[in-house]
Amino acid sequence: MHSVQFTAETSSDGVVERDFTMGGIPGVLWSPAPGSASAAASGPAPLVLMGHGGGTHKKWPAMPGRAHRIVYGCGFHVACIDAPGHGDRPRTAYDEQEIAALYRAREAGEPEGPIVVRYNAHLAERAVPEWQATLDALQELPEIGAGGPVGYYGLNMGTAIGVPLTAADPRITAAVLGMHWPDALAAPARRITVPVQFHLQWDDEHIPREAGLALFDAFASTEKTLHANAGRHKEHPRFEADSAARFFARHLTRPVPAPVLS
Amino acid sequence: MHSVQFTAETSSDGVVERDFTMGGIPGVLWSPAPGSASAAASGPAPLVLMGHGGGTHKKWPAMPGRAHRIVYGCGFHVACIDAPGHGDRPRTAYDEQEIAALYRAREAGEPEGPIVVRYNAHLAERAVPEWQATLDALQELPEIGAGGPVGYYGLNMGTAIGVPLTAADPRITAAVLGMHWPDALAAPARRITVPVQFHLQWDDEHIPREAGLALFDAFASTEKTLHANAGRHKEHPRFEADSAARFFARHLTRPVPAPVLS
Repeated sequence: MHSVQFTAETSSDGVVERDFTMGGIPGVLWSPAPGSASAAASGPAPLVLMGHGGGTHKKWPAMPGRAHRIVYGCGFHVACIDAPGHGDRPRTAYDEQEIAALYRAREAGEPEGPIVVRYNAHLAERAVPEWQATLDALQELPEIGAGGPVGYYGLNMGTAIGVPLTAADPRITAAVLGMHWPDALAAPARRITVPVQFHLQWDDEHIPREAGLALFDAFASTEKTLHANAGRHKEHPRFEADSAARFFARHLTRPVPAPVLS
Repeated sequence: MHSVQFTAETSSDGVVERDFTMGGIPGVLWSPAPGSASAAASGPAPLVLMGHGGGTHKKWPAMPGRAHRIVYGCGFHVACIDAPGHGDRPRTAYDEQEIAALYRAREAGEPEGPIVVRYNAHLAERAVPEWQATLDALQELPEIGAGGPVGYYGLNMGTAIGVPLTAADPRITAAVLGMHWPDALAAPARRITVPVQFHLQWDDEHIPREAGLALFDAFASTEKTLHANAGRHKEHPRFEADSAARFFARHLTRPVPAPVLS
């Protein structure tokens, strides 16, 4: 088993950002700054795994933005790793081929959906075991610990990876997902029973409305909430990052020990 | 023009509850207790008009529950009046006839929709001018004032009344609505352009999913958010009252005066 190797550390607004590598995969861990208002008095705190979108990376502006809300707002840790072929990671020949196909479709004004669905399904097969090994390693850190609450937060490609990951790993007990086609994801979604908050754009020019609603419908969770906002694919409103933070605050709490009768 | 006549006052948890009558209509106004953490330092505060559901009344437990979240959480005022034929108000012969028809349908296991749609449309015609007169009178109070931000919050029958009210009254600048059929409401919804948060139950046994989604789709608002939760009609989760409070906190703020250059 690989362990987390920290390589750099910065701090701002009560949040410590630590770069790490784990078995060659580059990642970042955001944590409450010691002594800040949101830091736990002592002991471990819950962890949110955050998946970035297609074509971006672990420090794309939305990632630290969402992480700060969760670290500062909830006192939790947030981790993000570069997906295969993304960020600081090399691309395979297949990656290059699919990315070229995507650009060709875009330029020709053809639908991106079939390529994104296919390529993201491939990336998810590579990414799910990587995330599980990363979670193993992160849970070795004393400030996170084994057996604590774990959430997952990822939209777009982050959902293509997050749905099979959440279906596969019982350590994940709450997930914020959204903005993807159901083709490869409805089947694993039907095995997910943990609370889900699902975001979609009502006027998404890439993902047909019925396709987005079908994926939300597929989750077997008894607690699931759809947040659908007016607007196109890239107009996902920033206040939904606050909705996600509140969702995790509600669900990622450690069980309160039963009082000992004396 | 009628004015608000206060008839009783109680206070709990930082919230003052004052019963009133306005032109014979009984209502209740919840306000921040003077000196409490949420009370404005001075001057008027925003107002949320709250419509109750069918068969209930202005003090049905959900009403003070939602009001406390908004008063205590945002420092706003919240007002609710009994709808025609509800609470402390007399029923007409037509009210009795429609209520009997509804109970007959329920007992026979027939769909309630057609009766609820028809009866609520009738009640809305009576209720909209009552709400407008109530708002006129409430804006005479110094702690609310004319020209300040006004929201509307009502589900079920509260939406049957709230959609035509919001379409008709430009003083209402943000609305939380939901859980109704689109039949009588899609047309006025298409005239609404203010921000809307819309709640529906994904597994509603009375309102077909497509019907609820069609009403959300009808709003012309550029900012509108659908919150759809797993569960049946009466399982609407309590945390959505917090979503509503945050929505009003975001939208019902007074314009900040431009700084005066000296």
